Amino acid sequence: GILERLDAGEIVIGDGGFVFALEKRGYVKAGPWTPEATVEHPEAVRQLHREFLRAGSNVLQTFTFYASEDKLENRGNYVAEKISCQKVNEAACDIAREVANEGDALVAGGVSQTPSYLSCKDKAEVKAAFRKQLEVFMKKNVDFLIAEYFEHVEEAVWAVEVLKESGKPVAATMCIGPEGDMHGVPPGQCAVQLVKAGASIVGVNCHFDPDTSLETVKLMKEGLQAAKLKAHLMSQPLAFHTPDCGKQGFIDLPEFPFGLEPRIVTRWDIQKYARKAYDLGIRFIGGCCGFEPYHIRAIAEELAPERGFLPEASEKHGSWGDNLSMHTKPWVRARARKEYWENLKPASGRPYCPSMSKPDGWGVTKGARELMQQKEATTEQQLKELFQKRKF
Amino acid sequence: GILERLDAGEIVIGDGGFVFALEKRGYVKAGPWTPEATVEHPEAVRQLHREFLRAGSNVLQTFTFYASEDKLENRGNYVAEKISCQKVNEAACDIAREVANEGDALVAGGVSQTPSYLSCKDKAEVKAAFRKQLEVFMKKNVDFLIAEYFEHVEEAVWAVEVLKESGKPVAATMCIGPEGDMHGVPPGQCAVQLVKAGASIVGVNCHFDPDTSLETVKLMKEGLQAAKLKAHLMSQPLAFHTPDCGKQGFIDLPEFPFGLEPRIVTRWDIQKYARKAYDLGIRFIGGCCGFEPYHIRAIAEELAPERGFLPEASEKHGSWGDNLSMHTKPWVRARARKEYWENLKPASGRPYCPSMSKPDGWGVTKGARELMQQKEATTEQQLKELFQKRKF
Amino acid sequence: GILERLDAGEIVIGDGGFVFALEKRGYVKAGPWTPEATVEHPEAVRQLHREFLRAGSNVLQTFTFYASEDKLENRGNYVAEKISCQKVNEAACDIAREVANEGDALVAGGVSQTPSYLSCKDKAEVKAAFRKQLEVFMKKNVDFLIAEYFEHVEEAVWAVEVLKESGKPVAATMCIGPEGDMHGVPPGQCAVQLVKAGASIVGVNCHFDPDTSLETVKLMKEGLQAAKLKAHLMSQPLAFHTPDCGKQGFIDLPEFPFGLEPRIVTRWDIQKYARKAYDLGIRFIGGCCGFEPYHIRAIAEELAPERGFLPEASEKHGSWGDNLSMHTKPWVRARARKEYWENLKPASGRPYCPSMSKPDGWGVTKGARELMQQKEATTEQQLKELFQKRKF
Amino acid sequence: GILERLDAGEIVIGDGGFVFALEKRGYVKAGPWTPEATVEHPEAVRQLHREFLRAGSNVLQTFTFYASEDKLENRGNYVAEKISCQKVNEAACDIAREVANEGDALVAGGVSQTPSYLSCKDKAEVKAAFRKQLEVFMKKNVDFLIAEYFEHVEEAVWAVEVLKESGKPVAATMCIGPEGDMHGVPPGQCAVQLVKAGASIVGVNCHFDPDTSLETVKLMKEGLQAAKLKAHLMSQPLAFHTPDCGKQGFIDLPEFPFGLEPRIVTRWDIQKYARKAYDLGIRFIGGCCGFEPYHIRAIAEELAPERGFLPEASEKHGSWGDNLSMHTKPWVRARARKEYWENLKPASGRPYCPSMSKPDGWGVTKGARELMQQKEATTEQQLKELFQKRKF
Repeated sequence: GILERLDAGEIVIGDGGFVFALEKRGYVKAGPWTPEATVEHPEAVRQLHREFLRAGSNVLQTFTFYASEDKLENRGNYVAEKISCQKVNEAACDIAREVANEGDALVAGGVSQTPSYLSCKDKAEVKAAFRKQLEVFMKKNVDFLIAEYFEHVEEAVWAVEVLKESGKPVAATMCIGPEGDMHGVPPGQCAVQLVKAGASIVGVNCHFDPDTSLETVKLMKEGLQAAKLKAHLMSQPLAFHTPDCGKQGFIDLPEFPFGLEPRIVTRWDIQKYARKAYDLGIRFIGGCCGFEPYHIRAIAEELAPERGFLPEASEKHGSWGDNLSMHTKPWVRARARKEYWENLKPASGRPYCPSMSKPDGWGVTKGARELMQQKEATTEQQLKELFQKRKF
Repeated sequence: GILERLDAGEIVIGDGGFVFALEKRGYVKAGPWTPEATVEHPEAVRQLHREFLRAGSNVLQTFTFYASEDKLENRGNYVAEKISCQKVNEAACDIAREVANEGDALVAGGVSQTPSYLSCKDKAEVKAAFRKQLEVFMKKNVDFLIAEYFEHVEEAVWAVEVLKESGKPVAATMCIGPEGDMHGVPPGQCAVQLVKAGASIVGVNCHFDPDTSLETVKLMKEGLQAAKLKAHLMSQPLAFHTPDCGKQGFIDLPEFPFGLEPRIVTRWDIQKYARKAYDLGIRFIGGCCGFEPYHIRAIAEELAPERGFLPEASEKHGSWGDNLSMHTKPWVRARARKEYWENLKPASGRPYCPSMSKPDGWGVTKGARELMQQKEATTEQQLKELFQKRKF
Repeated sequence: GILERLDAGEIVIGDGGFVFALEKRGYVKAGPWTPEATVEHPEAVRQLHREFLRAGSNVLQTFTFYASEDKLENRGNYVAEKISCQKVNEAACDIAREVANEGDALVAGGVSQTPSYLSCKDKAEVKAAFRKQLEVFMKKNVDFLIAEYFEHVEEAVWAVEVLKESGKPVAATMCIGPEGDMHGVPPGQCAVQLVKAGASIVGVNCHFDPDTSLETVKLMKEGLQAAKLKAHLMSQPLAFHTPDCGKQGFIDLPEFPFGLEPRIVTRWDIQKYARKAYDLGIRFIGGCCGFEPYHIRAIAEELAPERGFLPEASEKHGSWGDNLSMHTKPWVRARARKEYWENLKPASGRPYCPSMSKPDGWGVTKGARELMQQKEATTEQQLKELFQKRKF
Repeated sequence: GILERLDAGEIVIGDGGFVFALEKRGYVKAGPWTPEATVEHPEAVRQLHREFLRAGSNVLQTFTFYASEDKLENRGNYVAEKISCQKVNEAACDIAREVANEGDALVAGGVSQTPSYLSCKDKAEVKAAFRKQLEVFMKKNVDFLIAEYFEHVEEAVWAVEVLKESGKPVAATMCIGPEGDMHGVPPGQCAVQLVKAGASIVGVNCHFDPDTSLETVKLMKEGLQAAKLKAHLMSQPLAFHTPDCGKQGFIDLPEFPFGLEPRIVTRWDIQKYARKAYDLGIRFIGGCCGFEPYHIRAIAEELAPERGFLPEASEKHGSWGDNLSMHTKPWVRARARKEYWENLKPASGRPYCPSMSKPDGWGVTKGARELMQQKEATTEQQLKELFQKRKF
């Protein structure tokens, strides 16, 4: 089980981002980002799982992101033939399990933030949505559970509470940065609340780049230490550089979601991230949007000395570029070394583009932040309404 | 057949780049770039074909890049269990055909430049290598043939001559820029020689970004017009911005091949490319290294008005971002329009990185160019030796 | 007098940076940055004063930066014929007064940080150095006094105490950023200490760009408010963009001091700075290193509505580029408007250069900052020694 | 005399740009760029001459740029008290001579392109304008003459013809790039025509950066060699990086003239330029707009080994930063060496700005270029009209 591994000090490698990878492959629609592909195109989902497994993932998350009933109903209506929430979740479990059995991997059932929370905040209703997904996960007997991509710790706590009813280990990650959740709860306090609610593993996923995400996990770690609580740490950041983000992360960048290409991190960036995460004490290390199989392989290669083995996909990859050592051109052969790639500052080939963007929206709007602080707006919904009234 | 379609004025959409996509997925090794995955991991190759088909490709190229016997022998020795050239090529044909039958696509058997040419330049030997692959293509009955990725027009002509023996239509593309081939033959003359050798379709693939590649095809078109020759035009460029390349294209960029991420083109860049290619009279429009399925879909979407239909994968994509029109955040909804994405100058999020690189090697080395001009070095091999002696 | 003007609510415009401007003109040596030019080349110093006066400066600072005896002795030894501290200071006063009499300007005698403070920290010795300069200022009857460019508030307080002995109004500015002085005293506390020591005007000069400097002054303002103290606010920042600076400002940037050109701010940047400074309640607004006469004119032009008049130099300048309205080229004429210049994102023409630098030294070194916090090193001198021992 | 020096193989260092430097100092109005400051503020003009002399200039050009009667009349009407063309030119000669006598420098009387040429192209009228200035130069007995800043070789030839009437040596520089003059005459042909008209020294000034300007001079040199003509070569480029310019140079850059700061070249860029110019055989090496005294000093320092001496201003400058060798901070001391500054890629501190601009106007407009080629428009005036009609 996941806890046995982590308790034994093992490094557990997560998988990468499904919605972004499958959007580029043609199976997920940006905007809704819902996972009906598990039913529509199981072969495509299966193949991506396989690639992550081969790259070194020890955990395969069921492709159930945004697969709560309320989300599928609200946003899934473009799907010609209506596919039930249950079918989407069941198919996700089946595919993940099939591939996990091909190697050494655990299956984790995942839930994420719900539209119900934002529109009504009714605790019972929100919990019912999670419970519906959990029923499938129990029936399909996943190995453990992940509550991920929560912007409000309140909702994340509700999710953990529901998932804990199962008796299975629960991990919880929030899509927040060092500034904390959308109500201003700092990362350290978020971590404390999640652990108190029953999470054995806490951390962050999505919304921010590796460096920023590690800063946030560090704050979580410090919060837990101050509260004398114990939990394993986990990080699954973006594979995009986002030093210019505001509080809501990459959503507010002008390039989101169709112009993020120049921000994609290299495999070497990921090796640095893996090392830094390890040094910080994080032992569940994976990725989120933008992470392709080769990024996961980079984690596994960086931590191979500690783990004692390379992933299968490394048969098609040399350490730090050494597969270039036989290239015919001497100047390309000269790139077959760690120092070269470690120090490369990659050019963008885009001389008309800047290096940083000014985020849209209230992510960086002083007025909006002040509204939040003045407690006039405590939910995103309220803020949105104020936003529209006030013309920031 | 391909010629019937092109002669009728149809737009034919090619596929994207296999070696780069499968390297990231964990099935191809950078450096050798050989396609033994057709035997080792057919499901991964099949899935990529499917994604391109779904994105709109009308042509599925057999994954036989660098699959000549001499290349597989020299470089393929890292493959644990030796896989024969014949098996690699046969499997590639079978997979391509299987997927092509799932939709409206032709199968093209492909050959590319050989190490034999560079090491010996023996015409008989080089032609024998092409002929060996052609035998498989004939046995498997591909629909037409493509000679691609040639840096020297002499070798490309030999390839075309061999492929023409089959009686099937032949397309020929060179990986050159506006400066011409490695012996200094200008693009216009290359095109003339290829058509005279029997190619019905000529153009460029790989090594340069869409804009540069279209410049080169334009020079080919002008060369053919001046020679009063007729042929269809084809372009399959990189999906990387490379305005800073020298004569040998992206190989000589310091970022090749593991730090090219910030150069990846967006879907909107591709829509502009597709329109420009169309306006230039090119009717076989596809991509090469870096082209993922969503880039091919962008070609199909841009040219949907001319073609009268959208590709299957567009069910998961809105025109120019209109799938964002239902987003909860007003500032993200504001991105659901053509003007937004058309004019976006995407930031790199990399404030420590420059926008341009100085290519390595003789691509831009004055001394090397002069050597070429002085005819001291007429092959890459000779140049390499001179390069090592002279310390440019 | 200066206080009468400020108390009456007037905007007082300072002058720009002498050492950088005269270094480029050939009269000051970078490194020592000492002002013996007042004796060697009075006509060059006089001309620069005149240009600032003409651009709108209401205060002409004597060119006595780094003109304490200890500094001139230590560093001035490259001056062929030894020039006494007294002569340098006297000449500076005479030149400033001569030009001030040509218009409506006050003369301010200035002192700055001393090498004695860093090497010995002997209060009596440091104060004696200031007193020696003060004697000249009293003899030459300057209108008021400025203690500027202090990195340690302790030394700044000593300077203010000495200058207050004269009975003349005293302004005090520190070359610090939002992180505070080199001993970690935050800007708010620095301001409080300076006002308690007798300064009527407090603020910052040098080391950081306009935006960062205004942040620091804001913290000073808040510190004074919290302590219920009153003082006028002053800002004289760099005319270089330095968003990437560490605690010691632009000294630690790799470009300092001979490669800062791409960071030079435009006149439009300065207009934004002047407006922002005014809105923050600052009424003594000038500049430091990098500020040329046209930058000072930009302050005067931006605040002309409030002040009711334009500076003399505006006879050679139109508001927001309107002197382009008669240009022969229509596309240049189109630049004769505020919106154009206000929104321009100027290109650097440097595609091989990044947008940000990683500062050298302990400005950003974690180890160094921790040493400071651990009180192992409380002076720069001690830190330097530790720095050399520890190899950060 | 100038020719004696050049014939003897001496390196002659020119001066820098007056209109840009004096605009920043507050004495010249951008747009008109006329030199009435010679009468209004002689001390400011004198000081700038002195700084260039001190920096190493061997030639002081009279500040008579755009000082033809037609230009002063059309554009000078904002000057309160009308100042005659004769007075402006006489004062310019007097000031230049006064300063030249303070050191080892020649005085060159300068003429530049006239509005009359563009509006009427009447040869007699244009020549009369030049002759009027020449009369002053003869009366004041300048040492030689420079015809500079011509966009059309036809007008430049007329200027040379007039200046040759004096019997004094004549230099002629055009503000063109490698594409040639505004009528499409290539640089090589321009040089040939100028030498045939009587110029002893030919080259380029203004409009393009050092690298581009040297390319143009190289083409001129090759043109003269092909025509078996002899002349000395001269270059006085911008001190701005302009790799993105079209045919008309920096005028068409969106940053012209008030946002060029990030493009300013460093002293190290200038040392590279001086070396490259020397290696190309250019012996009259100076600068134009953007060149400040420290840029001229950089030429003199780079070529000090060849010339055998340093300029006066080098007493305040160390070779390649060696004046930093006594800095207190070890990491700043580490910058006191050639390798450091030679290899520095200076950051802009502007993460929201791109590295390149798209020039406005017909500089890069295909339609405009084609109009020129079709000879529909042969003067700028005609082109402007067409431009307005056609909406490029």
